[in-house]
Amino acid sequence: MGLSGAAGVVYKPVEEVDLGPASNEFYLKANVKAPRMAGFLVKIFAWFLESRIIGTLLLYILKRNNLIHKLVSNATLEESPMFVPLHPFVDLKEQQIEQIDSDASPSERVHQAINCLPLTPKKPLDGFKPSGFRRWTIADYSRAYSSGEITPLRVAEQFINAVRESSTGALPMSFFINYDAEDILRQATESTLRYERGDPISALDGVPIAIKDEIDCSPYPTTGGTKWLHKVRHCTGDACCVMRLRSCGAIIVGKTNMHELGAGTSGINPHYGTTRNPYNPNKIAGGSSSGSAAVVSAGLCPVALGVDGGGSVRMPAALCGVVGLKPTFGRIPHSGVLPLNWTVGMVGILAGTLEDALVVYAAISGQLQSYEPTTLPPKLHVPLLNTANPISDIKFARYGEWFNDCCDEIRICCSNALHLLCEHYKWKTVEVTIPEIETMRLAHYLTIGSECTASLSTYLEKLDFSKLGWDVRVALRVYGAFDSNEYIKAQKIRQVVANVYLLIDFFKLSLICEIQAISRIKKNRQMEIHKNIFAEADVIVAPTTGVTAYTIFDDALKTGELDYINGAALVRYQIAGNFLGLPAVTVPVGYDKEGLPIGLQFIGKPWSEPTLMHIAFAMQALCISHYRKPKVFYNLLNKN
Amino acid sequence: MGLSGAAGVVYKPVEEVDLGPASNEFYLKANVKAPRMAGFLVKIFAWFLESRIIGTLLLYILKRNNLIHKLVSNATLEESPMFVPLHPFVDLKEQQIEQIDSDASPSERVHQAINCLPLTPKKPLDGFKPSGFRRWTIADYSRAYSSGEITPLRVAEQFINAVRESSTGALPMSFFINYDAEDILRQATESTLRYERGDPISALDGVPIAIKDEIDCSPYPTTGGTKWLHKVRHCTGDACCVMRLRSCGAIIVGKTNMHELGAGTSGINPHYGTTRNPYNPNKIAGGSSSGSAAVVSAGLCPVALGVDGGGSVRMPAALCGVVGLKPTFGRIPHSGVLPLNWTVGMVGILAGTLEDALVVYAAISGQLQSYEPTTLPPKLHVPLLNTANPISDIKFARYGEWFNDCCDEIRICCSNALHLLCEHYKWKTVEVTIPEIETMRLAHYLTIGSECTASLSTYLEKLDFSKLGWDVRVALRVYGAFDSNEYIKAQKIRQVVANVYLLIDFFKLSLICEIQAISRIKKNRQMEIHKNIFAEADVIVAPTTGVTAYTIFDDALKTGELDYINGAALVRYQIAGNFLGLPAVTVPVGYDKEGLPIGLQFIGKPWSEPTLMHIAFAMQALCISHYRKPKVFYNLLNKN
Repeated sequence: MGLSGAAGVVYKPVEEVDLGPASNEFYLKANVKAPRMAGFLVKIFAWFLESRIIGTLLLYILKRNNLIHKLVSNATLEESPMFVPLHPFVDLKEQQIEQIDSDASPSERVHQAINCLPLTPKKPLDGFKPSGFRRWTIADYSRAYSSGEITPLRVAEQFINAVRESSTGALPMSFFINYDAEDILRQATESTLRYERGDPISALDGVPIAIKDEIDCSPYPTTGGTKWLHKVRHCTGDACCVMRLRSCGAIIVGKTNMHELGAGTSGINPHYGTTRNPYNPNKIAGGSSSGSAAVVSAGLCPVALGVDGGGSVRMPAALCGVVGLKPTFGRIPHSGVLPLNWTVGMVGILAGTLEDALVVYAAISGQLQSYEPTTLPPKLHVPLLNTANPISDIKFARYGEWFNDCCDEIRICCSNALHLLCEHYKWKTVEVTIPEIETMRLAHYLTIGSECTASLSTYLEKLDFSKLGWDVRVALRVYGAFDSNEYIKAQKIRQVVANVYLLIDFFKLSLICEIQAISRIKKNRQMEIHKNIFAEADVIVAPTTGVTAYTIFDDALKTGELDYINGAALVRYQIAGNFLGLPAVTVPVGYDKEGLPIGLQFIGKPWSEPTLMHIAFAMQALCISHYRKPKVFYNLLNKN
Repeated sequence: MGLSGAAGVVYKPVEEVDLGPASNEFYLKANVKAPRMAGFLVKIFAWFLESRIIGTLLLYILKRNNLIHKLVSNATLEESPMFVPLHPFVDLKEQQIEQIDSDASPSERVHQAINCLPLTPKKPLDGFKPSGFRRWTIADYSRAYSSGEITPLRVAEQFINAVRESSTGALPMSFFINYDAEDILRQATESTLRYERGDPISALDGVPIAIKDEIDCSPYPTTGGTKWLHKVRHCTGDACCVMRLRSCGAIIVGKTNMHELGAGTSGINPHYGTTRNPYNPNKIAGGSSSGSAAVVSAGLCPVALGVDGGGSVRMPAALCGVVGLKPTFGRIPHSGVLPLNWTVGMVGILAGTLEDALVVYAAISGQLQSYEPTTLPPKLHVPLLNTANPISDIKFARYGEWFNDCCDEIRICCSNALHLLCEHYKWKTVEVTIPEIETMRLAHYLTIGSECTASLSTYLEKLDFSKLGWDVRVALRVYGAFDSNEYIKAQKIRQVVANVYLLIDFFKLSLICEIQAISRIKKNRQMEIHKNIFAEADVIVAPTTGVTAYTIFDDALKTGELDYINGAALVRYQIAGNFLGLPAVTVPVGYDKEGLPIGLQFIGKPWSEPTLMHIAFAMQALCISHYRKPKVFYNLLNKN
């Protein structure tokens, strides 16, 4: 694309875009100049924005400075809009997979998934001395419960004590928005009885799992991180994904803290306290699924659920040193998730290990039973994890300028990890050019903002704005400033970018949204696609975030904070996962010099979760012996 | 819904909506108070609208007076948006159908479709004396060519003479925007040679077919009824549907006139002349596919293609006394159609008889070959037409207040036709209530307007507005006034209304858009649906238009015309077909006292074209002996 025009950019027909390493497509760095604002400054800014005349002017300037006009609103694009990034299912013929019947119950699916895990020697808890640090896994819980070494009830008691302990002191961790000790103990008692009868439901029976407060879950209200949303939108039962976990016997231990309305990436929440990073409580946990990442990191749960609308699962996972899996759009039912948007958000899984992510993935995937199949197949594919016999011939697509657009320590750490991975498994990296990343970020922002506005507009009309954090007031004002042309243009960019990705490596996949199939299609596109030199790359690789967890300043605690520079660095690698609905996974691969975790991300073709998990597992296997214990950590399987 | 609130309407959860005949849902008549404007008045109005400050104020008042704020922008709805009304394919197990392999070539599909037509005695042209008036059909052409009674070349010559003749005189018919005599004669010569060799491609070989100037078709530019669009967007080849017709040997005879940008329903076009109604050249042909309806009506082609984004095929078909078929959204590839919108428009077929609509439907249906299946099945179902052995147990859903919201003559004529149909075939009518029809009209307007703006925005920026008709200038100004919240709200209304229709009669169908499948779904919806008393209705029946063809006034010819009252009466029965993607067909059933045609419309479940065609054929069979000859009519198979 050319940036020289005074008006909007004219996007090249997709088959003319060179995706090779020597492409003349240039990498446009996010154009963020805004200073960090918190405390009094953010209040002033919000007031200005909310004033009718100055606000309108300010918004115009903001949009122009952010290139929204040039790259999105006034852009010229031939493509039709892709409104929903739902990809027709295609059997990828992946290596080393197991097929699970989608009609099987969640507990049966867990059972089959457990059989896909590598065998580990059965060691009693006391005798377990891992070479490095490692968190207890679902398998550890299951084994300890089954052997009678410890009961779910005892774990629940220790969990409750740990959460209480974490909430006190100078730096309260603010893991949860709500947790109900009585409800937890009731579930634990029932689970304990099942083990006593020798009749646990599944490997998840008695395993504590936390749920982001954006997902409906009895008996809790769903606050979305606000002080008001649950009062106007009542939670009437479990979300589908929660229901499935419950049916496996998991103990749902409460609703984790989050960035208010998911409208930020820091996890700084003026209403429920700011979730702190277990590796350093002076640092953010990342957001918006901050609590879900932090509880897994701190050993309170092997797994938690989050929602990823713009990296909200992967960012906090990376910052808190855990695994974050965002499946393909449509893979997990969205039923019972706050409708803050409809076309970019997806339930995601935060877990201490890739194996645990796999087990929960198997439990909650698949569409609602009561409806006809739309795009999902009758079989759920899960990877047969085995590092001794890894999958072969994986090729990573790496866009150097983008990969390296992060702080030095992340760049070095991620490069080394990728190098190690390729060396060890004889996999390859191909250098590519992925154009229009910044355009995609803006189009995604416009989309999520518009949908958030449409979702909340009725409530916001009647709402006392003083109930909102100041950073969210600013966000909502910007979100509400888009017109329908801009929204639809953003969806056209979704199609453009999807087509570009199609060129990179999805040619076998018919990455075609419903609307593309009936829209004007360039005659030679298929031919071009087949010719493409990148047709053989399996996965795109990049760091998960451009910065590690940054410092929580006191002035932000009460007002929230606007830090667009750090925010842009956090979301830099997230957007394809949401805007194009691609699956992605982040794995901890090291630490910066302050000891803060660094994540490496793999972004896959639609429906390629098995391959992604194979790769992530292989990466984890190479790094796990160097994993470090967080400063804030609880050992719930400790018998004493 | 309740209209009392000062702010937006709060829509009832769909399972609480009573759809029975005694429902307290009230029928909201379109609230149109605007006077007709043409000539100087419409210029003044456009100038006001285009002025920045007065225009903004005017638009606000217009939107409020039209209840857009109350019914759409500020409405409270639980439903997720349905962006694209693409329904998963479900085999309806319809009666008396033939399955055609979708992979078969268009000509093979035509061959199989011809076998589904009822047998008619082979009569030579001269001996043919129909009881009433009837137009030549595809079968007539095919028979006359094969028997050597007449050649395609001779027909082409007569066609060209007829079009020339129609363009002269006090009331030029303005059928075509472009037709190229040389190109037509070339095609006709080739076809004639094929017949001479005894080797015609299909029954369509040598049959003249006209194409709306919204569909790409070599060697013509695609003007969209404008004087500028083809200069900025070049036609580079045939649209997919045109390509398929050409591959059957059809003679593509030119590009028919249309309402500029499809942004109106009258067919009054200040640039290319106003298409006149063959039944009375002082009356409109209806729009926006005005030329396509008129050429079929006037006997110039047995079939023409149109595009139906808001009734644009069905309205002119009804006004010109021909059959209009708008298939299910996604049934015919949209490739090569002007992208004036992406989620409501569909290629439709205008034909002299239902049989001919069926043949062309078989030729052009089915998605693009080069892409993977998304929602269409491997088999195309077509009806086996036979009035002697009709399908049984059809039930019509009739919403009295809506059905009767038209002029007296239409009401009486359509009621009588429906009565006759039910009597003759022992079919039944059930009385129902269909709520939110006016809401749906507004949401559709907001959708098509927003998409048109997004589609044309780049061009419009650089465009000299004096190149636009004045009515279109007004339309574009209104179209551009919607924000992203309003657009998304309209898509939520699409979901609400789709759900209401689901309750009416689609319970077997899983009328679920991609997004609904992953959205929050009411737990008891399926149960409610099954309980529903209207579960047994097959088809919704209504008049096609609320008025017959109205007078073309001289003051409109140069400026275009704003006539929202007649416009609202024309689109009254159209919207479900576009906004929900439902198939619909209109059949001529009579004439008003001025001799202007009246159409009756059947709206079906998604993918139920075979049943719709069965019903329409049955209706046609009961009316055909009363069909009247238009004042302007050409007999191309006349040997002399």
